[in-house]
Amino acid sequence: MKRYRKKSFPPDKVRRFLEPGPIVLVSSAHKGERNVMTLGWHVVLGFDPSLVGCYIWDENHSFSLIRRSRECVINVPTIDLIDAVIAVGNSHGPGVDKFAAFGLTPVEASKVGAPLIAECYASFECRLVDTSLIRRYSFFVFEVVKAHVATAPRYPTTVHYRGDGVFMISGRNVSYRRRFKRANL
Amino acid sequence: MKRYRKKSFPPDKVRRFLEPGPIVLVSSAHKGERNVMTLGWHVVLGFDPSLVGCYIWDENHSFSLIRRSRECVINVPTIDLIDAVIAVGNSHGPGVDKFAAFGLTPVEASKVGAPLIAECYASFECRLVDTSLIRRYSFFVFEVVKAHVATAPRYPTTVHYRGDGVFMISGRNVSYRRRFKRANL
Repeated sequence: MKRYRKKSFPPDKVRRFLEPGPIVLVSSAHKGERNVMTLGWHVVLGFDPSLVGCYIWDENHSFSLIRRSRECVINVPTIDLIDAVIAVGNSHGPGVDKFAAFGLTPVEASKVGAPLIAECYASFECRLVDTSLIRRYSFFVFEVVKAHVATAPRYPTTVHYRGDGVFMISGRNVSYRRRFKRANL
Repeated sequence: MKRYRKKSFPPDKVRRFLEPGPIVLVSSAHKGERNVMTLGWHVVLGFDPSLVGCYIWDENHSFSLIRRSRECVINVPTIDLIDAVIAVGNSHGPGVDKFAAFGLTPVEASKVGAPLIAECYASFECRLVDTSLIRRYSFFVFEVVKAHVATAPRYPTTVHYRGDGVFMISGRNVSYRRRFKRANL
């Protein structure tokens, strides 16, 4: 499977890849255990600091790894990883090393213990900054502390989940920049 | 502009249209005032009840209309509304009737005071059910109490914002249903 060559990217600009709403692969690690899960329920909550909210179901094994380690990596897969995306979403850890089972290569992160995924287009290292919404909404608020984004292509072809096994695959990217007020860009 | 003929739709299935991450138009009304805003920072938070979280910037006029009325309508526009989406996002109420200015037709909702938008593919009537996150994160938690979705096409061609004036336009819809475990559908 293709591994993307990535370079450091400004954390305050990760909305470019998350706001369009792709399925992401969230990797986690704690005390020798590691895991990866699929996630579609995420939201940008700010630029500076760069905040992302994620609904993580409490029956996921990742829930406890992330809550205990207070870290994760949000990875953005492209359509060429659709098999792994579906397989990860349809298996449950612990007991399976999903990295090995589904051909995903863990790469050491720089600021968190959870691994980056080499085959993903982008990887955002995150620290858990607010736990107060976990009990009521299973909602984790993360700060992106380090971002890695592929040097090419400019825009990834991402997969977006509609439920019922149906994915929307991202289409054309069109700039309407000239029609925006500068302050709103 | 085309108006979609919509019919009633199960509120617990609106994730089909929101989880892929489209830009939405949020309409609001309070004491004779009404407004509409563009929004890309939203997240599904549950099926039953059907919950959606939205980051609404506190400098938007809509912020106060929604907080005071405790209601809104989340409308899903398609690519044919791109001019209105950009115009709404680049203007600020009060002082402008954005419905009249940008060719959007308000239609009476059945359970809330805020209007549906006739030209949108889908409209979800929402009640504000949790205000505790507004001060810290400008984050509103809504319950979808009534949903209206176009009878055709099956999937809308939505617009997804990348920042910097660039939109991703939704592409193909592909079913991988046979590769899912039944419990995960």
